[in-house]
Amino acid sequence: MTDKFTNEEKNGLYKAIHSRRDVRSHFISKPIEDEILSRILNAAHHAPSVGFSQPWNFILIKDPETKKRVKESFEKERERSSQLVEEPKKSKYLSFKLEGILESPVNLCVTYDPSKFGPFVIGRSSIPEAGLYSVCCAIQNLWLAARTENIGVGWVSILSNEMLKKILDLPDHIIPVAYLCLGHVDEFSSKPDLEKKGWLPRLELKDVIYFEKWDKKENFGWKNIQEIIKTNLDYP
Amino acid sequence: MTDKFTNEEKNGLYKAIHSRRDVRSHFISKPIEDEILSRILNAAHHAPSVGFSQPWNFILIKDPETKKRVKESFEKERERSSQLVEEPKKSKYLSFKLEGILESPVNLCVTYDPSKFGPFVIGRSSIPEAGLYSVCCAIQNLWLAARTENIGVGWVSILSNEMLKKILDLPDHIIPVAYLCLGHVDEFSSKPDLEKKGWLPRLELKDVIYFEKWDKKENFGWKNIQEIIKTNLDYP
Repeated sequence: MTDKFTNEEKNGLYKAIHSRRDVRSHFISKPIEDEILSRILNAAHHAPSVGFSQPWNFILIKDPETKKRVKESFEKERERSSQLVEEPKKSKYLSFKLEGILESPVNLCVTYDPSKFGPFVIGRSSIPEAGLYSVCCAIQNLWLAARTENIGVGWVSILSNEMLKKILDLPDHIIPVAYLCLGHVDEFSSKPDLEKKGWLPRLELKDVIYFEKWDKKENFGWKNIQEIIKTNLDYP
Repeated sequence: MTDKFTNEEKNGLYKAIHSRRDVRSHFISKPIEDEILSRILNAAHHAPSVGFSQPWNFILIKDPETKKRVKESFEKERERSSQLVEEPKKSKYLSFKLEGILESPVNLCVTYDPSKFGPFVIGRSSIPEAGLYSVCCAIQNLWLAARTENIGVGWVSILSNEMLKKILDLPDHIIPVAYLCLGHVDEFSSKPDLEKKGWLPRLELKDVIYFEKWDKKENFGWKNIQEIIKTNLDYP
């Protein structure tokens, strides 16, 4: 398989990456078409996985009773975590809309099963977390595929995993990695919500790249790329 | 931003997902163009991150001395981990080419910095691992962007993170998440190496999807999609 990408195909990937959003407040009630949902789940299933262990499972949820219980866990955790931050940030934090559990037509819990094809998985004996990392790659595949299908995805991480395990009957050894809200949206925000609202700024690319060793921002052998990453590389 | 994707753009994303490979043995020595490398690093930097914390750093490496030391760590860990598996699988495992550290023109260590914008990060107080998950999403963005640019990426997870921290001068609180090998390739394999070589089979999509609760493969409310995911959804 040596086929190159056309400019438009390549653009499709970059467009998905740069216009993908964590969606909380723009869901509409229109159901997700089963063909679309299947395609984006299949995209997730084709993520890289350590030792080809494919250690993920996807639990599709639309039962209102389940959603209600998950939403209760969110509210409890949000209240608890708000105690960790001082005013005026606390009030700002509490004013944010941070989930769309009830409004989104489909909820999806993505889980990690360390026992799949185990105990010996190639590449997992030195870095045991590598299995979890594979599941995250699957989530990002799903997120990008959803964006091209105009489906919004929101990741709710203000939750108790212990509650989630009870609500979804997860066995002890299964780790919930993500609880996602999926649905059609009326729009995708031009920027991440927390950037728009001035919570935190977007870091500059040049500030997250080092050369050869930690914290080295200058290196003669990388002179040209040092210049390029100082320019604004944002997708138009 | 409500712009839809054209069919070709959408296809570009799915093509990247389904033709992306973990590359170990197809690197060629041609250097990576700085413009391409900048674009794929920028794609990584535009991943989702918990509380918009952007907790990643990217250390670009081409120093042969560094590569040599990382390769030594790989060899030691491979030897150690081979003791965990019985014959005949052990010999098979040892026969696999599992990294391209020296042959690939660029190595890249992707790290997680929990202190960035901390200690309070929205969404990280209930699930502390969420910061690590963000870094993995960035890695998958990079991997897909690289594929559209015809750059191969291989993730080496048979390594000692302790050694890596020493080699790259990482401070104590910084976690190395991935050590990647990047370069132009002579081809992308049609299937994952470990699938091709009969190490493990590709799971069927229907076997990783549950409905409403763990392990529930049948649910009347999800009847239509149950049928769809039984068919072969593989990208052509």
